[in-house]
Amino acid sequence: MRDVAIVGVGLTKFGERWEAGLKELMSEAWLSAMEDANISRDDVDMLFAGTMASGRFTGQEHVAALIADQLGFSNVPAVRVENACASGGTALRQGYITVASGIHDIVVVGGVEKMTDVTSAEASTALGGAGDQEWELFQGITFPGLYAMMAKRHMHDFGTTEEQMAAVSVKNHENATKNPYAQFRKKMTISDIMESKMVADPLKLLDCSPLSDGAAALVLAPLEIARKLNDTPIKILASTHATDTLRLAERETLTGVKAARIAGEAAFRHAKLTPKDINVAEVHDCFTIAEIMAMEDLGFYKKGEAAKAIAAGETALNSKLSVITSGGLKGCGHPVGATGVKQAVEITWQLRGEAKDRQVTKADIGLTHNVGGSGSTAVVHIFGRTN
Amino acid sequence: MRDVAIVGVGLTKFGERWEAGLKELMSEAWLSAMEDANISRDDVDMLFAGTMASGRFTGQEHVAALIADQLGFSNVPAVRVENACASGGTALRQGYITVASGIHDIVVVGGVEKMTDVTSAEASTALGGAGDQEWELFQGITFPGLYAMMAKRHMHDFGTTEEQMAAVSVKNHENATKNPYAQFRKKMTISDIMESKMVADPLKLLDCSPLSDGAAALVLAPLEIARKLNDTPIKILASTHATDTLRLAERETLTGVKAARIAGEAAFRHAKLTPKDINVAEVHDCFTIAEIMAMEDLGFYKKGEAAKAIAAGETALNSKLSVITSGGLKGCGHPVGATGVKQAVEITWQLRGEAKDRQVTKADIGLTHNVGGSGSTAVVHIFGRTN
Repeated sequence: MRDVAIVGVGLTKFGERWEAGLKELMSEAWLSAMEDANISRDDVDMLFAGTMASGRFTGQEHVAALIADQLGFSNVPAVRVENACASGGTALRQGYITVASGIHDIVVVGGVEKMTDVTSAEASTALGGAGDQEWELFQGITFPGLYAMMAKRHMHDFGTTEEQMAAVSVKNHENATKNPYAQFRKKMTISDIMESKMVADPLKLLDCSPLSDGAAALVLAPLEIARKLNDTPIKILASTHATDTLRLAERETLTGVKAARIAGEAAFRHAKLTPKDINVAEVHDCFTIAEIMAMEDLGFYKKGEAAKAIAAGETALNSKLSVITSGGLKGCGHPVGATGVKQAVEITWQLRGEAKDRQVTKADIGLTHNVGGSGSTAVVHIFGRTN
Repeated sequence: MRDVAIVGVGLTKFGERWEAGLKELMSEAWLSAMEDANISRDDVDMLFAGTMASGRFTGQEHVAALIADQLGFSNVPAVRVENACASGGTALRQGYITVASGIHDIVVVGGVEKMTDVTSAEASTALGGAGDQEWELFQGITFPGLYAMMAKRHMHDFGTTEEQMAAVSVKNHENATKNPYAQFRKKMTISDIMESKMVADPLKLLDCSPLSDGAAALVLAPLEIARKLNDTPIKILASTHATDTLRLAERETLTGVKAARIAGEAAFRHAKLTPKDINVAEVHDCFTIAEIMAMEDLGFYKKGEAAKAIAAGETALNSKLSVITSGGLKGCGHPVGATGVKQAVEITWQLRGEAKDRQVTKADIGLTHNVGGSGSTAVVHIFGRTN
């Protein structure tokens, strides 16, 4: 297995991109990443594209071949991967495996979702495809409902409060104000969150990530080649992936995501690191409770202790551990297929020292955590500087 | 890179399986494959599931995690891949790469599609996602229309006739009568085909593959491990994948599929074989013209010569080269995500000598050819006996 590095990153602005379709979003992100990596289309050996529900959102499947066509890649293998909201993280891991194995050298990994051309109800139904259609969605539950049950149980078991959840949203919106790619660049207060409309008790509108259009892309290369392309290759120190039951009702616990715990433990083991070594992390905050559980699943906090710590500011920008400097799914937006890739883009910028207004002072080691469904899929990556 | 073998295969009956959903179809195929390989669920290290449009057909995305859950695999990585009608072949190639690279040992690869719970019009729209939504489907073309244009040009350039195309259908229906898994087990005559309803001139109903429900699965292992599990491992001699423009209008030619030519040439080169070495092949006969082009793209015949040869019986069961012994997409059925995997199941049975009524006398080397869209993706595999 070879060492693998990120040598180029690209991102679109997230939001309601009514002027752009799938092709425009993908081109914007992918061409930026290729320019950043100093490569041309003829250098690309293979590509992976993560998208969750392009068929239901836009009618378009076969998205990897579409992007290969759109960018004029010459006949290279192109694979779409789909693992619900973890499609982007999955694409990154498949790209990592491809380069690490020695099969291909230059692999472009992207993620995209175009969600705002359908009604909110249609979008909600499409996103429901991440859970068990027959046993969950058909019975009337939605994703805010699933996460609301996890939140209720977390509150019951650990005394987690609605105000603590709101504090997650406030932090991520604060960081989003510093990110030019973010969908929402407006500060929010605890009372803004608490007074927003109830979606699924106890989760309010501002506890939930939005519908977004957007794309993100990464260029991967073997570390040896990376050093010739770029002064600041970011090395992938671990890439792990685990699953759990699709149905929330069958999990061992409602207050954590076992797949994330497994993937997280494996990632730290492979990287020979511990949670204490991480300086900056992008975790999957599809709902505020999800970030609280993520911080516990990954071992940053003991079970039941993350909510209080986040509310006390321990994970704010330039604290001991800066969590979700991008603004996250909540503040930056959540074009589902793009999210896992965008997390790695943000960490790359932080580790290169290119994150501008939101740059973390010490950023040597970063982590991403991308979850699909209510916790059926989890993909974790750890990244390190090489200079 | 390690040698990789198929050590277990499983298949469902194809057809209108109104009693079975995605879960039942997948379980039926996957459990058969695991039983055939003498492995239990705890032996599985990773899985890939190919499905094209499960979201639009059933509402269900996240299909790889669903099957991992359904079969009780314990937290292993699960990845859905989607490349339109080449989703199954793509899943096989990703599985092959995973085992060959040494990352995982036992990898299960499956494909599934549940197509008959929606109307034919809805199915046609969903399948249109394989082409360019904005520049092809939105303008009113359908897949029979795209292949009809290829057929018209093939007729114009090479004198290919409608009767010769009908002969492809007659051959595949004949073989399907010998396959208990086939959707249609009825002999057809040239006049049956010629007199069937026109769909898109010159393609008639019986030139076209049907809508089908079905699933297929394979267990892959490194060859060394395979020999311990099974007396008849089938070695993967080549696994190749190429793309071309998504839009038919932008291709170099309408009378062939460049991606298939590139993947085919690479496969023969990797396997150090020529088309003459192949005893049995499953090619992608989504429409009769597609099989004619496949035989030319893969180098079995010179451009313009395949139609006459097929009509003369040169590729019938137990002729020099037996093509589509399963009955193919036309006779056996075409649950799109399952097709590429099912092709490999059929070749495995032939190479093991287990194809019963449709067994080819000499079956040492086999080939599969799986196409996505109107030729934007092509995946080719070559397989050999090891005993």
